[in-house]
Amino acid sequence: MEKIILIGAGNVAHHLGISLFGAGHQIIQVISKNENNARALAEKVNADFGTDIRKIKKADFAIIAVNDDAITSVAFQIKNMPFAHTSGSISIENGGVFYPLQTFSKNIPLDLKKVPFCISAKDIDFENTLLEVAKSISNFVYIINKKQRKTLHLAAVFACNFSNQMYYIAEDLLKKSDLDFEMLKPLIVETANKIIKNSPLSAQTGPAQRKDLKTIENQIDLLEDADLKSIYKLITNQILK
Amino acid sequence: MEKIILIGAGNVAHHLGISLFGAGHQIIQVISKNENNARALAEKVNADFGTDIRKIKKADFAIIAVNDDAITSVAFQIKNMPFAHTSGSISIENGGVFYPLQTFSKNIPLDLKKVPFCISAKDIDFENTLLEVAKSISNFVYIINKKQRKTLHLAAVFACNFSNQMYYIAEDLLKKSDLDFEMLKPLIVETANKIIKNSPLSAQTGPAQRKDLKTIENQIDLLEDADLKSIYKLITNQILK
Repeated sequence: MEKIILIGAGNVAHHLGISLFGAGHQIIQVISKNENNARALAEKVNADFGTDIRKIKKADFAIIAVNDDAITSVAFQIKNMPFAHTSGSISIENGGVFYPLQTFSKNIPLDLKKVPFCISAKDIDFENTLLEVAKSISNFVYIINKKQRKTLHLAAVFACNFSNQMYYIAEDLLKKSDLDFEMLKPLIVETANKIIKNSPLSAQTGPAQRKDLKTIENQIDLLEDADLKSIYKLITNQILK
Repeated sequence: MEKIILIGAGNVAHHLGISLFGAGHQIIQVISKNENNARALAEKVNADFGTDIRKIKKADFAIIAVNDDAITSVAFQIKNMPFAHTSGSISIENGGVFYPLQTFSKNIPLDLKKVPFCISAKDIDFENTLLEVAKSISNFVYIINKKQRKTLHLAAVFACNFSNQMYYIAEDLLKKSDLDFEMLKPLIVETANKIIKNSPLSAQTGPAQRKDLKTIENQIDLLEDADLKSIYKLITNQILK
């Protein structure tokens, strides 16, 4: 059982805090610039709360779960204990990493047990502590180095943010033709579920996979937006290779 | 109950045949250039089978479930009954459309009841027949016009084939850093499942959504392949807009 300070009270902090508390860890304090968020989370995990990082209490370590661009300045103010942040892209000398590889949205419940956690820390004892804590809330915990973490974050941007943008483009195309995005939902979910058993390469279908150049040409003509035409061509050429 | 000829014995024909047979329709004949495939499917749906389109039997109508580039030549040889094809992109004068909006892969079972079917035909009686047959195997049947069908197919390419390509890019990036694609699977499935309840626009996360230009710059630097850099920039700019 560890004594933990949570810095941040957004989506990630919320999911983490509740899981850590549920796994028997003691959440000493929740600190967030937004007092309401800090209080709401603190109540759920039986913790104190505050808005001023300078009034941080003492604990075994702190988890910094704030926006990437605020992590460094927050970390700079933590002098009295080790800390780890939850970001895939930030690196801080002497800071540990406690990176849940998942997309967190408000009001969407998540089973953290199935979320991969990526751990690293310069200090081997602290790394072991983070490892044990991660294992107490997730079944998939990995120690990865800095280069690997950056690659993982980049891969996650393609697999998650960019695939989601493809859904958005599809929704927008349908809207302009008075078609309901509901029609595409089974296809989207099936496409994602296929990769559980098949590699994306073997699961690929569609005109580019079939080398159906006539359909590809017709679809490029159908697109009115120049950026969409470019995106269509680039990804299609990638599949054609 | 309709008497149906199935032309094709691939993934789509297989799923359709079994569903139609299960819904009480009579599959008169399965015709495929591949005799083994024709026989295998025919056995499952209690039908005759053949490899020669010139020896087609008589039925209420034929469903052409073959590759897009073979549809027109197959359709040209059907003189004695109405026919519909299963393609999202082909249009044939006097040919009906019986287009299941889903990605079909070998050995992946599918619940056709949840697959949207898009129907159209010039002849209103035939369109009604196709509509009733589609309703007998799916809960989501739509009549759509030619322009809508082409847009739908284009949107499906973005939502399905292109998102799958994003998974493939991610897998490839991970492989080069000795990381296991297994790590990304929960994220991919969660990203797709989110659009069931949230619009893709509101579900977006990641560096572009946060306007985190520093991370974006670092990630572009991390990419070695020029095409991947272009894909990254184009999609990121789209999200930044």
